[in-house]
Amino acid sequence: MPLMTIQELEAFRAEHFAQSDPLKMKIEKLDGMTMRIRMPIEDAQHLRPGGTVSGPSLMFFCDAGFYLLVLAQIGPVALAVTTNLNISFMRRPSSSADVIAEMRILKLGQKLAVGDVLLFSEGDPDPVAHCQMTYSIPPKHKR
Amino acid sequence: MPLMTIQELEAFRAEHFAQSDPLKMKIEKLDGMTMRIRMPIEDAQHLRPGGTVSGPSLMFFCDAGFYLLVLAQIGPVALAVTTNLNISFMRRPSSSADVIAEMRILKLGQKLAVGDVLLFSEGDPDPVAHCQMTYSIPPKHKR
Amino acid sequence: MPLMTIQELEAFRAEHFAQSDPLKMKIEKLDGMTMRIRMPIEDAQHLRPGGTVSGPSLMFFCDAGFYLLVLAQIGPVALAVTTNLNISFMRRPSSSADVIAEMRILKLGQKLAVGDVLLFSEGDPDPVAHCQMTYSIPPKHKR
Amino acid sequence: MPLMTIQELEAFRAEHFAQSDPLKMKIEKLDGMTMRIRMPIEDAQHLRPGGTVSGPSLMFFCDAGFYLLVLAQIGPVALAVTTNLNISFMRRPSSSADVIAEMRILKLGQKLAVGDVLLFSEGDPDPVAHCQMTYSIPPKHKR
Repeated sequence: MPLMTIQELEAFRAEHFAQSDPLKMKIEKLDGMTMRIRMPIEDAQHLRPGGTVSGPSLMFFCDAGFYLLVLAQIGPVALAVTTNLNISFMRRPSSSADVIAEMRILKLGQKLAVGDVLLFSEGDPDPVAHCQMTYSIPPKHKR
Repeated sequence: MPLMTIQELEAFRAEHFAQSDPLKMKIEKLDGMTMRIRMPIEDAQHLRPGGTVSGPSLMFFCDAGFYLLVLAQIGPVALAVTTNLNISFMRRPSSSADVIAEMRILKLGQKLAVGDVLLFSEGDPDPVAHCQMTYSIPPKHKR
Repeated sequence: MPLMTIQELEAFRAEHFAQSDPLKMKIEKLDGMTMRIRMPIEDAQHLRPGGTVSGPSLMFFCDAGFYLLVLAQIGPVALAVTTNLNISFMRRPSSSADVIAEMRILKLGQKLAVGDVLLFSEGDPDPVAHCQMTYSIPPKHKR
Repeated sequence: MPLMTIQELEAFRAEHFAQSDPLKMKIEKLDGMTMRIRMPIEDAQHLRPGGTVSGPSLMFFCDAGFYLLVLAQIGPVALAVTTNLNISFMRRPSSSADVIAEMRILKLGQKLAVGDVLLFSEGDPDPVAHCQMTYSIPPKHKR
């Protein structure tokens, strides 16, 4: 069972990241070690030439979302940090559909959390990107 | 020899990415297959809790910078796309020093360009991150 | 539907890789874009100090297995080559259980195939490693 | 300064890995945080159809070599383990030239060591592969 609810995660995010986070992500589902998040495509900042969602926006989305999924497991510890992120971009995301991320934790250890994310343009079953991440967990969090 | 100069790259970037690019990158050196770029840290948008430059800003910087380095080699083709990016975050970047990227192309093929980037906080010899990237090159560019 | 059956894949592998392949992999299931393979742990060559399966053996297993899964889709073209492999090692595999790989193709394009693999020690639901791969597909294969 | 010499590393490797290691690697240079190793191409096991060195042999080489470079820094601790390896294959290595690895440590922390490797076919300045690795360091090693 996660230690934090969707509401607690959203509140944590609003408090700590409001200024620095241009994404309007919405957590749609949090269920054990998996989570689904939505990134609304409403903002020219995410787009790049050719009218597609930019790669950096997708990476931002994965990184910020997985951070929340890790927090949900270990509690509101602001100091977990990404140590590695690997992403393969496979298809151009639609510029007229929200991006949906399906993410899961594959390992939650004492020092490291590892997981991956599949990104979709809403309504299309073929993933646009696949991202693998490792987070370093601070040593004295309570679990 | 690159096909484009620093001035041509900056002009291309201003024309195609002005709206979508929150970074104020400056190309400092372009020399064959290597390039040095600066990302001024002047903007709260790049910062995250703890006063460090955010990981997504660093990824954005690598991705956008390497794109320009590839363009410099193949000419102003707006359609090169990232297929893979792998980044290891090694140290917290300073929030009071600009980020410097030293990047190089390791392979420039017909279909793929591969390279890597070392990121530094200016004045510190220890890298803050290392990023490896693959770009897909559109088939009919003129070379 | 795959173009090749398990029997055809095993025959192809015996013909082309017998000499160079120290693994005794067995394809257990091939179903559309997914495949399950078994690597029997019977051989000191796979082991490393501490009595666990070595990382390189796991990487070999992922690479060789995904190659067969791609072949199953595009037909017996010996020239598909790996362009990128990213693996996270998460838990020590048991040295007394076979390794099971669950792999899937996430994208099968004209030029690139992308997919991932979860590796398990048989009987344990927690994955020991997660691997993401990109294969370059030769231009003139028949599809 | 490394804590171990080339001779000590070779002795450690002979003692712990003789049975499991099909590579005949030779450390040619160890200098602070960098190392050069040679993999002689004398052995059909490394080759794949088309007469090139196999990808898994190159991965094995990177992983085993970087392990030794980390040991050289922290002393003969047999329990450092790879947590992540990312490799891009860029050119077909020659089947008639030894493979040379130029590796470096980019970060040597308390918990993690990060570095990369460039692989060459001897005599050719264009790299055949680039590999980025993270090793987890056991908590109580003496430094």
